[in-house]
Amino acid sequence: MILTKGLLRSAQNFSDRLAVVDGKVAHTYRAFSDRVSRLQQALKQEGIEKGDRVAILMFNDFRYLELFYAVTAIGAIAVPLNYRLTAAEIVEQLRDSSPKALFFHQEFSPIVAGMVMRVLSVRLFVRVEGERKEEKIGFMIDYEELLRPYSPQPLAYGEVIEDDVAGIFYTGGTTGRSKGVMLTHRNLVSNAYHAALTFRFDRFTRYVHAAPMFHLADGACTFALTLVGGTHHILRTFQPDLFLDWVEQAQPTSALLVPTMVNRLINHPDVEKRNCSSLRQLIYGGSAMPVEVLKKAREVWPHLSFTHAYGMSEAAPVVTALPPEDHQVEERLASCGQVVTGVEAKIINDHGGEVGVGEVGELIVRGPNVMKGYWNRPEETALVLRDGWYHTGDMVYRDEQHYLYVVDRKKDMIVTGGENVYSIEVEQVLYQHPAVLEVAVIGVPDPDWVEAVKALVVKRADQEVDEQTLLDFCRERLAGFKVPKSLTFVEELPKSAAGKILKRLLREQYSQPAD
Amino acid sequence: MILTKGLLRSAQNFSDRLAVVDGKVAHTYRAFSDRVSRLQQALKQEGIEKGDRVAILMFNDFRYLELFYAVTAIGAIAVPLNYRLTAAEIVEQLRDSSPKALFFHQEFSPIVAGMVMRVLSVRLFVRVEGERKEEKIGFMIDYEELLRPYSPQPLAYGEVIEDDVAGIFYTGGTTGRSKGVMLTHRNLVSNAYHAALTFRFDRFTRYVHAAPMFHLADGACTFALTLVGGTHHILRTFQPDLFLDWVEQAQPTSALLVPTMVNRLINHPDVEKRNCSSLRQLIYGGSAMPVEVLKKAREVWPHLSFTHAYGMSEAAPVVTALPPEDHQVEERLASCGQVVTGVEAKIINDHGGEVGVGEVGELIVRGPNVMKGYWNRPEETALVLRDGWYHTGDMVYRDEQHYLYVVDRKKDMIVTGGENVYSIEVEQVLYQHPAVLEVAVIGVPDPDWVEAVKALVVKRADQEVDEQTLLDFCRERLAGFKVPKSLTFVEELPKSAAGKILKRLLREQYSQPAD
Repeated sequence: MILTKGLLRSAQNFSDRLAVVDGKVAHTYRAFSDRVSRLQQALKQEGIEKGDRVAILMFNDFRYLELFYAVTAIGAIAVPLNYRLTAAEIVEQLRDSSPKALFFHQEFSPIVAGMVMRVLSVRLFVRVEGERKEEKIGFMIDYEELLRPYSPQPLAYGEVIEDDVAGIFYTGGTTGRSKGVMLTHRNLVSNAYHAALTFRFDRFTRYVHAAPMFHLADGACTFALTLVGGTHHILRTFQPDLFLDWVEQAQPTSALLVPTMVNRLINHPDVEKRNCSSLRQLIYGGSAMPVEVLKKAREVWPHLSFTHAYGMSEAAPVVTALPPEDHQVEERLASCGQVVTGVEAKIINDHGGEVGVGEVGELIVRGPNVMKGYWNRPEETALVLRDGWYHTGDMVYRDEQHYLYVVDRKKDMIVTGGENVYSIEVEQVLYQHPAVLEVAVIGVPDPDWVEAVKALVVKRADQEVDEQTLLDFCRERLAGFKVPKSLTFVEELPKSAAGKILKRLLREQYSQPAD
Repeated sequence: MILTKGLLRSAQNFSDRLAVVDGKVAHTYRAFSDRVSRLQQALKQEGIEKGDRVAILMFNDFRYLELFYAVTAIGAIAVPLNYRLTAAEIVEQLRDSSPKALFFHQEFSPIVAGMVMRVLSVRLFVRVEGERKEEKIGFMIDYEELLRPYSPQPLAYGEVIEDDVAGIFYTGGTTGRSKGVMLTHRNLVSNAYHAALTFRFDRFTRYVHAAPMFHLADGACTFALTLVGGTHHILRTFQPDLFLDWVEQAQPTSALLVPTMVNRLINHPDVEKRNCSSLRQLIYGGSAMPVEVLKKAREVWPHLSFTHAYGMSEAAPVVTALPPEDHQVEERLASCGQVVTGVEAKIINDHGGEVGVGEVGELIVRGPNVMKGYWNRPEETALVLRDGWYHTGDMVYRDEQHYLYVVDRKKDMIVTGGENVYSIEVEQVLYQHPAVLEVAVIGVPDPDWVEAVKALVVKRADQEVDEQTLLDFCRERLAGFKVPKSLTFVEELPKSAAGKILKRLLREQYSQPAD
């Protein structure tokens, strides 16, 4: 099974149903697959062959879907890029993946113009028209111009097999330099089946791409939705107002949001006045959801069924899910759920042995969804892929019923005075305080404790609180060694595109021993 | 992905939920998988190894599931046998598959005792206690005795890969000598995903195995249900009364019935008085459903959502489905639906070219669900499996929206005076007559027409009608050459276990030219 066949079946069975709605653009599955076919012919004509890379530097857009399907139907490899990176970081990923073509939104024209001489592999620059009209630049061809000469043909996929790489997804880089995760058709199709079953998608699902499409948090749903013939709703970028407008106007049934988006929505002044009744399912994932945020979200949208999906790019991405019915059980709200069908999981200690109920260890996972490896990085691949098991670097424990609880990233765990402190545990406590909007807990070098627990806190706009009050709040709820040794108020926290707080950057910033 | 992992995940995640209910027996997923593990150990101890065959001659029983999972977790091959065959036919299938072990219900002890010297491959005879207590016979061991020495261990599946054969399913033999369809883990797991998505199964599904478990009509749902953690309800054999009792008492949500079962239920005098409110989904398949029967069923159970599943053993088995929402459209009721996700279909003419909309041709299908081949029959395999496409022998056409309509088995098509007559079309007309309970239309040798159309009709108990009336009824509704040249009333029609009318037998019986 390959991605292309998922589209072909929906194009055949559901030809007159809506495949994608993006602003004023609405394409049926027939129109969608016709455009994919035209793009595929154009790419072939431009010399894109099996195994070639095609990079994408775009906001969410209906053409993102066309690119995913046209590129992979050739057996070529889509390389979605994080547009929030600096130009230097983007150049690094382009040099690493050496694509033959680069598709970009008009807004990125200046960046692209500046990198032309530094990324020599790219022979085809295709500009996607954005919100502002702009003069064309000589070497760039317009997306619609590229398609114009071609008429729809049956989508060909003769050369493609399921073990071909379909995409290289650069990891968010929350831990060190980003690596390109190679996912095959088999990986992405397996996840599509797992996700469609877990999220109960069908042809009546109208799903909003609100999180960035270059990221696999949103990508968890993309191929599943096409597979069952649901409708893709596209939000160019996430803004609470725009999201709420879209829900009122286009009436989607389903969305995946990362926790920081949920947090922004429930803190939006109008949220309770806006009509979100069409929305029935809220999937959240991409990073840990503070339980207090989740509880508030349930209050704001009592009609929604919540599903937590947990995973990572290397697992294409879904590993576990906490379905709506499990959200009825209070103590399960902190769990990331149980492994989804098709995926195996074990929790191991430093010696590779399985740990018991309640013991923290590293999560390792196996299944047809697990990546082929990191692009160009055989050593780093060998470190994490052993005997078919992907070593996630996430520290977790499980309960008797095999519900998993993520306590921390292995690299975010703080070792202070010989004791392990899981940063997430301390953060969950601070989130319970009404004055706290956002928080990150990190370890900083300390002469006495080797590492000391430090909290960085963003206050709510309308609230006042001091350091001592929050530390006392922690002291009442945590063992002494877990209570932060210091707490600093900040205006904002650095975040990845998936809304993950970039603790690596915070550690660098605060790595000087405290004065 | 292999079948075993589907069970293991449910045993882990849903350990305290009910896996199987069979009369007074109710096993949780933990208890179920513990018994599978004990059976697996026993089988290994008895010398069953990877690739060995284990034959099963049993009514529906919770132990059928245990056998499927224990045998396949070793990498051995389950061979379910049709208990309605004659002893000679069973011996033929046993000789063909040469199993090392035979599991059978006590009721079949006399047959088994009689075949011991004729099937020398079997070294282990295991008797499953039936409804009557009976003396043990020396060489037979009792199922529960076989398990007794073993305590539950983690289910091992070390040697098994997804391309290993998991089962040999003998085709019903509606056309010629029965052949053993080899289905791999991959075939059955693929179908499980396709079926779970198509039928929208989840952990809350309570499905009744009412059709015989040795047949893949019921098997369409078996592995899908375990995969999602639903509950298997077991009905030993199908009787309208027993089925209705079970529905009232055990409150299943879902059932797959073959059309003859549906026909018997809706003609049951009490059906409207019985409480079937727990049942929400009726899947029908295994053979063509006369539209009149379907319409009556909708009247009897207006609360049910109907899904038609069409397929064949060689496709593990689901190929197309007509979901509940398509049952709202009157002209679609005669359709077997659209291809399910993961399966490809084409309709070809005698030269292998694709035919257009509305043109009848042979259906060919491809996908990860398509069988490895026929056991011991490389030539017959090569005839039907070409370039990965399975040639179904079913004559179908499609409409603009790719809904398929089965017009006949290729071998059941009648060529009369140079015209093709599809027997199903004539049958559908006769089913519209209120006096007709069941009908089969066949071609019989004829000196003038080469073949002549002949109808065999079973009348309703309370109705009277004569041959001429029915032929006139046809003449008003069919082109002249399609109207039967003769019509005979019979007491009953010969049927396969899946409820398919055995036209081959009828053709043999009526093959003498008409007097």
